[in-house]
Amino acid sequence: MAMQRTPLLMSRIVDRGAIVSPQVEIVTATAAGMRRQTLAETRTRAHRLAHALADAGIRPGDRVGTFMWNGSRHLEAYHATAGMGAVLHTLNIRLSPTDLEYIIGHAADRIIIADADALPLLEALAGRIPCVELVVVAVEEGFENWHTSVAPAVDYEAFIAAKPDRYDWPELDESAPLGLCYTSGTTGNPKGVEYEHRSQYLHTMAQCMTDSMGLSATDTVLGIVPMFHAMGWGIPWSALMLGCKQVMPHRFLDPARLVALMAAERVTLSAAVPTIWQGVKAAIEAQPDRYDLSALSRLTCGGSAPPPSLIRWYHDVLGVEMIQGWGMTETSPLATLSRRAMKHGDPSRPVDEQLANVAKAGQLLPGLELDIFDEDFNRLPHDGETVGEILVRGPWICSEYYNNPQPERFHDGWLITGDVGKIDPEHYLIIADRSKDLVKSGGEWISSVDLENHIVALAGVDQACVVAQPHPKWGERPVALVILERDADVPPQTILDHCATHYAKWQLPDDILFVDAIPLTSTGKMDKKAVRADLATQGYELPDLRTAGGLP
Amino acid sequence: MAMQRTPLLMSRIVDRGAIVSPQVEIVTATAAGMRRQTLAETRTRAHRLAHALADAGIRPGDRVGTFMWNGSRHLEAYHATAGMGAVLHTLNIRLSPTDLEYIIGHAADRIIIADADALPLLEALAGRIPCVELVVVAVEEGFENWHTSVAPAVDYEAFIAAKPDRYDWPELDESAPLGLCYTSGTTGNPKGVEYEHRSQYLHTMAQCMTDSMGLSATDTVLGIVPMFHAMGWGIPWSALMLGCKQVMPHRFLDPARLVALMAAERVTLSAAVPTIWQGVKAAIEAQPDRYDLSALSRLTCGGSAPPPSLIRWYHDVLGVEMIQGWGMTETSPLATLSRRAMKHGDPSRPVDEQLANVAKAGQLLPGLELDIFDEDFNRLPHDGETVGEILVRGPWICSEYYNNPQPERFHDGWLITGDVGKIDPEHYLIIADRSKDLVKSGGEWISSVDLENHIVALAGVDQACVVAQPHPKWGERPVALVILERDADVPPQTILDHCATHYAKWQLPDDILFVDAIPLTSTGKMDKKAVRADLATQGYELPDLRTAGGLP
Repeated sequence: MAMQRTPLLMSRIVDRGAIVSPQVEIVTATAAGMRRQTLAETRTRAHRLAHALADAGIRPGDRVGTFMWNGSRHLEAYHATAGMGAVLHTLNIRLSPTDLEYIIGHAADRIIIADADALPLLEALAGRIPCVELVVVAVEEGFENWHTSVAPAVDYEAFIAAKPDRYDWPELDESAPLGLCYTSGTTGNPKGVEYEHRSQYLHTMAQCMTDSMGLSATDTVLGIVPMFHAMGWGIPWSALMLGCKQVMPHRFLDPARLVALMAAERVTLSAAVPTIWQGVKAAIEAQPDRYDLSALSRLTCGGSAPPPSLIRWYHDVLGVEMIQGWGMTETSPLATLSRRAMKHGDPSRPVDEQLANVAKAGQLLPGLELDIFDEDFNRLPHDGETVGEILVRGPWICSEYYNNPQPERFHDGWLITGDVGKIDPEHYLIIADRSKDLVKSGGEWISSVDLENHIVALAGVDQACVVAQPHPKWGERPVALVILERDADVPPQTILDHCATHYAKWQLPDDILFVDAIPLTSTGKMDKKAVRADLATQGYELPDLRTAGGLP
Repeated sequence: MAMQRTPLLMSRIVDRGAIVSPQVEIVTATAAGMRRQTLAETRTRAHRLAHALADAGIRPGDRVGTFMWNGSRHLEAYHATAGMGAVLHTLNIRLSPTDLEYIIGHAADRIIIADADALPLLEALAGRIPCVELVVVAVEEGFENWHTSVAPAVDYEAFIAAKPDRYDWPELDESAPLGLCYTSGTTGNPKGVEYEHRSQYLHTMAQCMTDSMGLSATDTVLGIVPMFHAMGWGIPWSALMLGCKQVMPHRFLDPARLVALMAAERVTLSAAVPTIWQGVKAAIEAQPDRYDLSALSRLTCGGSAPPPSLIRWYHDVLGVEMIQGWGMTETSPLATLSRRAMKHGDPSRPVDEQLANVAKAGQLLPGLELDIFDEDFNRLPHDGETVGEILVRGPWICSEYYNNPQPERFHDGWLITGDVGKIDPEHYLIIADRSKDLVKSGGEWISSVDLENHIVALAGVDQACVVAQPHPKWGERPVALVILERDADVPPQTILDHCATHYAKWQLPDDILFVDAIPLTSTGKMDKKAVRADLATQGYELPDLRTAGGLP
């Protein structure tokens, strides 16, 4: 051994920001305004929480659930569990009681730290989660009279009060588990992804590279993406390491309130799914002169692809760079990222070409491997045309699911992502679709995402959702659900004509359905499974099948 | 195992730049102008070189020496050896034949790749390095008639010609050796530091963080620091991974030529020791309107501390940020880095305070630990005043020397750096001195570096070198060797008066010696060992010892 074999433990980096920049603030939105604490206070409180958890019997490897919005106490739970070697199991507040019961039991969470306002959502689980020995309740303004019957409960502040200020983080193996996050599949029970110290440590380093998000200690970050989704995209970890100011929106996710928060706290970087950025855009357009967003420089967008028209709007109107990322719970989650200028020649390219970069899922982060494959796992060409199943591997990619290996989701050491896409000659990944959302018509694939992006670029259209509907001759045909902007009047034919400027006739939607809302998944993406189920419930038929004659 | 256990091998990142940005150039200075090749060509040539080395019998773990300037073929040697698992042993061209003989024999280099122009320096080793089976000669313009008798020799181009374009990089353990670099100590033989794949991989990721050098694929980097010094500070690896344009000065290190190179190739970031930046400054001042350096944004400075006046000059005159780094061969080499703005509040601080950051060795890179200790290894306070021995540990810090463990250089898992310094309340490291260069007067330490920085800030002073001289009463007293700018006339008393504005009387130099040159080490630092030896040879005596009466 010639070099030191220092294990890659999160405990070696989570305290760093508080040490080098103790006075930087963690700011949490509450009903009474903003609650502020310094990084130094956050660190001390996290160490106290670790002592409290240890005193309550939590040992390295034990699961500690959180049922929380983004807030300072959720951050303390990240910090404490990472330091002490417990496993942070972030529970998605928006899951059904059935899924929550399964997940809590499968993970065998011993303690759950819950926001008081979210306790009613847990109440349905009373008597059904016997593994949970204690609920630690984080109380915000207005929720002082909380109650729960799911387990013995204690107030968070009482839990950590009078504990020592410093916990000697233990030396663990770098493959020790760090976190657990369940992903809701289309079939079967949710599956757990267990993050390890090494994998998240490497993910954190990659996220802090200039050509990733360009995260810097000088940033003020607003993570809107919930901390119960894939480690909040890793931002809490990176920000703790660097010593960034963090702004936490808690349960206040109304777009106008988010914009006000960005302006008031001089946020430089934020992260959310496209539907949030659509809402934020609408809030700004509603009151264009109200907000000073001059500090804002980057908006990271993941979960699904932002429409190019949205990327353009943020550039033209706010001078803000949208950064697209692609990944999933199984990839920690960052796998690719797209910046306006991320290759040597990019700064001298026209703005249109730079923005076209961002419309793609992006370049693979250093250290990962990714390729597209056909059904027999042959690699496909990188011609920007050929669509294949995306497989990925590398040091922060999942190798099996927690206590539920699912070998069919892996091939020869690669994760089968379930997304399909193409790779262009410049090695940009372009996501075509979730494989289950692709429309397969007459043996050819139609990308629902492409059609949606095209439709929302039309004036008067607010959102679009394209799903497949069964067709006896073609297999499947696309149908577009469309939400119009308020007071807009866009006839179906206008939308079809607009699509025909770009797509072949067989790729056009068979039907345009105007709707008031599109159901969202618990992660804020359009829930196409629910859309298809709704259509089935309504007995929806494709137009050419409605005639008595059957097939045309 | 929940996450993939992908080994951290350099082979997983060295090809990346060539894949994503194949057309970006590697540019090498030659007598006939610039030689250009693309990253794609560089990659292919590196893979061919790997085949050639393997065909010549090189196996994973075998040492391949390089005796080369910074040039495209040296980069190919980095790339090829890292990929195939051979160990790149970078030989310092400026070492004495005695040291070279020892180092080559100790490393048991089987092949040496040498620049043709440097062959005469190897010739003294004829018959003394039997381990070397082959010399591969990289020929630049004007050296076609090379000759060597140290071993059988072959032209580099002939060696790699007709080899396959792709080498399947083997799967190695991440602790496999990657490189070997000897450090010349003050006593005894040079000691080898063996870098591993894992350590250099992690170093590369840290170097590419925004808050490190902010290295980006969009950069054009000019590494002036030789690639035979501590992996060229890691820049060749980072640039290969990101796909930066790299500019290689080869043997043309005249400051005016370096400035011209920066201007012509639109360099954005360069790296060198302070003496180079002093020379570059003089070259620019000599012809202030000649060079367009508008692309230049950052100059990384290491090896020894840049004087604050130099940092200020580059800021005021060129609008360029100097970045100070501290480290050593044993630390891969980056341990600390200092930026103008590297903490959350820094961008809003006055420029003077920002530049004061850069005058310090800086903040520890994430993942490392560093502290100052007394002689009994008790930690000392971080008050910006207390000086102690600097110890460092972490995943890219050496744990022993190659086949020569030297346990006295390590303590409880920490590397004893041999530097002394202080840490201020903001956690900036400030190097006081090499422990062997500190002046110990009457039990108190005087920092030679501090005095030198103060003296060179005086108008008319070009360089200063402070060394200790023995004194029967005080132990040691400082003496300053000073090089004045051409035509400047600065009396000794002016220098002492200038020092007295900042230092106590007992800290002032006892003597000011005007000299024309100060000897440099092979790494371009002032060679204080040589200065002290010269003074001894000359029979130098401190002024107060020259009087017949002895002690004052």
